[in-house]
Amino acid sequence: MIDLNSDLGEGFGIWPMGDDDALLDVVSSANVACGFHAGDPSVLRRVTERAAERGVVIGAQVGYRDLPGFGRRFIDVDPAELVNDVIYQIAALDGFARIAGTKVRYVKPHGALYNAIVTHAEQAAAVVDAVLRYDPELPVLGLPGSQWLRQAAAAGLTAVAEAFADRAYTPEGTLVSRRLPGAVVHDLDTVVERTVRMAVEGTVVAVDGSVVAVRPRSLCVHGDTPGAVEIARRVKAGLVDAGVELRPFG
Amino acid sequence: MIDLNSDLGEGFGIWPMGDDDALLDVVSSANVACGFHAGDPSVLRRVTERAAERGVVIGAQVGYRDLPGFGRRFIDVDPAELVNDVIYQIAALDGFARIAGTKVRYVKPHGALYNAIVTHAEQAAAVVDAVLRYDPELPVLGLPGSQWLRQAAAAGLTAVAEAFADRAYTPEGTLVSRRLPGAVVHDLDTVVERTVRMAVEGTVVAVDGSVVAVRPRSLCVHGDTPGAVEIARRVKAGLVDAGVELRPFG
Amino acid sequence: MIDLNSDLGEGFGIWPMGDDDALLDVVSSANVACGFHAGDPSVLRRVTERAAERGVVIGAQVGYRDLPGFGRRFIDVDPAELVNDVIYQIAALDGFARIAGTKVRYVKPHGALYNAIVTHAEQAAAVVDAVLRYDPELPVLGLPGSQWLRQAAAAGLTAVAEAFADRAYTPEGTLVSRRLPGAVVHDLDTVVERTVRMAVEGTVVAVDGSVVAVRPRSLCVHGDTPGAVEIARRVKAGLVDAGVELRPFG
Amino acid sequence: MIDLNSDLGEGFGIWPMGDDDALLDVVSSANVACGFHAGDPSVLRRVTERAAERGVVIGAQVGYRDLPGFGRRFIDVDPAELVNDVIYQIAALDGFARIAGTKVRYVKPHGALYNAIVTHAEQAAAVVDAVLRYDPELPVLGLPGSQWLRQAAAAGLTAVAEAFADRAYTPEGTLVSRRLPGAVVHDLDTVVERTVRMAVEGTVVAVDGSVVAVRPRSLCVHGDTPGAVEIARRVKAGLVDAGVELRPFG
Repeated sequence: MIDLNSDLGEGFGIWPMGDDDALLDVVSSANVACGFHAGDPSVLRRVTERAAERGVVIGAQVGYRDLPGFGRRFIDVDPAELVNDVIYQIAALDGFARIAGTKVRYVKPHGALYNAIVTHAEQAAAVVDAVLRYDPELPVLGLPGSQWLRQAAAAGLTAVAEAFADRAYTPEGTLVSRRLPGAVVHDLDTVVERTVRMAVEGTVVAVDGSVVAVRPRSLCVHGDTPGAVEIARRVKAGLVDAGVELRPFG
Repeated sequence: MIDLNSDLGEGFGIWPMGDDDALLDVVSSANVACGFHAGDPSVLRRVTERAAERGVVIGAQVGYRDLPGFGRRFIDVDPAELVNDVIYQIAALDGFARIAGTKVRYVKPHGALYNAIVTHAEQAAAVVDAVLRYDPELPVLGLPGSQWLRQAAAAGLTAVAEAFADRAYTPEGTLVSRRLPGAVVHDLDTVVERTVRMAVEGTVVAVDGSVVAVRPRSLCVHGDTPGAVEIARRVKAGLVDAGVELRPFG
Repeated sequence: MIDLNSDLGEGFGIWPMGDDDALLDVVSSANVACGFHAGDPSVLRRVTERAAERGVVIGAQVGYRDLPGFGRRFIDVDPAELVNDVIYQIAALDGFARIAGTKVRYVKPHGALYNAIVTHAEQAAAVVDAVLRYDPELPVLGLPGSQWLRQAAAAGLTAVAEAFADRAYTPEGTLVSRRLPGAVVHDLDTVVERTVRMAVEGTVVAVDGSVVAVRPRSLCVHGDTPGAVEIARRVKAGLVDAGVELRPFG
Repeated sequence: MIDLNSDLGEGFGIWPMGDDDALLDVVSSANVACGFHAGDPSVLRRVTERAAERGVVIGAQVGYRDLPGFGRRFIDVDPAELVNDVIYQIAALDGFARIAGTKVRYVKPHGALYNAIVTHAEQAAAVVDAVLRYDPELPVLGLPGSQWLRQAAAAGLTAVAEAFADRAYTPEGTLVSRRLPGAVVHDLDTVVERTVRMAVEGTVVAVDGSVVAVRPRSLCVHGDTPGAVEIARRVKAGLVDAGVELRPFG
């Protein structure tokens, strides 16, 4: 049993991104952008409605306030302000989710914020604080061992670990930096194979050949890369073929 | 019995506006900006908390997405998008209101949107639709006779009329355009006198000397003009002296 | 002899739009977005450099400050502020054009601003004023008979008329509203035929079958529609086959 | 002979900041915000015109694209994009300066960017590259010993050192961090005394009592603090009384 999550709702105004509809037919959880680094109110409305129609669980893809940078640039925001930026985003998305007959069921930070709070304790604490204040029943999704998941768990939140079948892992179980060669696995068959292994055995073969435990409750498939839909479909088919049930954690 | 409302939470980032704290000690209802034309997440957090502490009712001051223009410029937004822009704003503010232990209790459009939906049927319908979808129990505040209040009432929303003690009225009961001389009443004693008359008798003396029925459930005092706090305090004192009870409608 | 212009540089951050490089191989004039409704500094840099390399003339595609609406929504901006918004945009783009070894050689308003100043005298005057102040030698491009071109000519600017081969014309020589059926000509052969007729004879067949004089100095091909590049190439080939020389006006 | 510079033009839309007019009567150089972290086109127009009228030299106060944070938060922008962000800002301001009959005569980064490029070599190189491309004759203003000034000088730009009479200095001649007690000198007489010493002797008394050489060509007075105008006037009077001539470096 595993969850498949993807970033959705990342268009802005005239500019689309990815194929939300096609991905919503594949994933069990949709990380929906909330308007600070991507997404706008009409995108949020459409994606939440379509997710609700398909029974896909909606999570808040919160990020830095940085449309020009798509949330991919670290911003040294005052943690006291970051708390509020995150609350604002969750609340706005939750409004649309409720209108669609459901609600926001988890929180997953995006881009540079996701990366920052692997180690940035103050910003991690700010995002945890935001979730606690908004709704302490909300699970949070992220990288195992990160400040984010550790602080969330310590604060009583349900911390859910995810893994990336298309990313290389170090022997320590962390992701190989994108700046290094081989950080991304491009071969589709290999991605599918790694996916199934992660879901069935809870392990991944690291860059040095060692076998590392990852035990993810959710697998992330990318929504904005070329061939994203095809990859997601193949990953899902591989899981189903291996007898793994797709079930959202949220 | 009457309500006193004012626009609050209109600072943005480094830039403050008005004296929110002082006005919160005077008014019974706070129209809090939601971030589209003014306000930011940390402003929303602070104002909602302080309003809640004082028992001041929180309303959503929704507007066009136009920080550079402070929402004071008509934008010919597609009504289908305006619905979503308004939902987004109400939901974001409601998140902070709930964290502060209360909730958004009414909706009052701001600036150019307020003025547009006096007559612009499609945009008025869009704002009504947004409130209906978000929470059909929410009262809406506006100008008597406007498309906004008439459509809201027709759709089953509680439509609440407000009046402006510092604005000149036509014999027909509409506001004299700000472009005309005498549109704004500057003498403080006169403002207080008009306030009491509006609250007690439900009438105002129009520019031609005739007496016009206005019967407001709420009176708007401006928060961002010089001397705003002093005016608000005097208006409140005048009402109390006349035996009028200040009570929020929301 | 005619000019072929197209809207370029309309991506924003992570979000691309159109195929700037392919269109730069076709057109003689590039209307480059300046960052207020589309475009960002890195887009401006890239497009101006590539235009300069190919000898394509650069014009400032100025618009309302409205990234969420792509400049397609009328905004009732104070004309005194619109002057400055337009100066800012021209100047920013000109900085990049100069770095690329050339300069901004004309101004063409975009979207809702383009449409507004066909009839909105005050906003038309504001854009004319901006060009006069920035550089009175700059030609301006627009719709024949518009307030924009008439005021520009009256102020001593070089007013250049453009036509649209893929848009239906009224017998009066104005464009058929996009809200009406048949406003856009979709058949590519017909578009090419109309193009050549506009360039060679200076006429177009209106919706009622009458022949109307248009005499454009420039023809606009759209950059952001499906098949935009193919249409532009066919239009150009049609012109060349008819012995028409492509030459920028700027 | 010394220059007095201050940050000006930092209002945005409805929100004013500081008293630009009063400060323009005091300083010899105005660091004018360019719209990315503060300022808007109408602010730029007004400040450049008034500066030009008074013979105050205009510099480009460039910053991160961050209106919500007033440019005070480090952003890990890709240096290749930062180059373009800075070019855009200088060019936009230069348009208004030229309309006012003058031009941008220097560049001074703002806030978090100013602080970052004291040590961040890649971002410093990006800002240097932007100035070189826009106009290699433009002097740049900053902290002595910073990456910014050192790289600028190495690239052939005129690097101008500034000092802060109201900031405490370490024995090494760097500023005491604002996070430490005593970082800011609040006593006005002391500020004036330090100013004169910096201008006349080129020295400052550091926090440990040692005398440090600073030799600034320009002194920065803050424009947005309470009493800013009074401080600036007193500083100027102190300099004049000491026989120091105020002369812009730009």
